[in-house]
Amino acid sequence: MDFVTVLGLVAASITTISFLPQMMKIWQTKSAKDVSFMMLICFNTGIFLWLIYGIILQQLPIILANAATLFFNLIILWLKIRYR
Amino acid sequence: MDFVTVLGLVAASITTISFLPQMMKIWQTKSAKDVSFMMLICFNTGIFLWLIYGIILQQLPIILANAATLFFNLIILWLKIRYR
Repeated sequence: MDFVTVLGLVAASITTISFLPQMMKIWQTKSAKDVSFMMLICFNTGIFLWLIYGIILQQLPIILANAATLFFNLIILWLKIRYR
Repeated sequence: MDFVTVLGLVAASITTISFLPQMMKIWQTKSAKDVSFMMLICFNTGIFLWLIYGIILQQLPIILANAATLFFNLIILWLKIRYR
C-alpha cells in the first residue's frame, strides 16, 4: 500500500471516528438542541454523493470513510429528531 | 469536465455548505453545549489530513471541499470554545 493510500485511510479513520463522541454526547445528555438539523440533512446528502463518487473512482479510502460517516450521521440525525 | 468531477464538486459543495447553518445556529443562540468538543478536534485534524491527501493526488474536489470545510469547522471550534 502506498503512502498516499495510507494517508487517506488515516484521514478517513480520524474524520469518521470524530462522530462517535458527538453520537455518545447526545445519547448521554438526551439533548441535541444546539446541533443544527439543516446541517445534518445537508451533510448526510453530501456524504451519500461522496460515497457514489468514491465507488465510481474505486478509491478505497473515500468509499470506507463515507460509508461509515453516513452510518454515524444517520444515527445522529435520528438522535436529533428524537431528542431535539 | 467529466461527470465524476462534477459529482465530486456537487458533493463537495453540499457537505461544505452544510456547516454554515451549524455556524449560524451557534452564533445566533450563543450556545454550543450539545456540540461535542472532541468531535471538533478530531474532525478538524482529519480534514487537515484529507486536504494533504487531495493536494498529493491533485484531486480538485477533494482540495476545495476540505479547505472550505476546515475553514468553517475552525470557526465552529472557536465558537464552541467561546460559548461552550
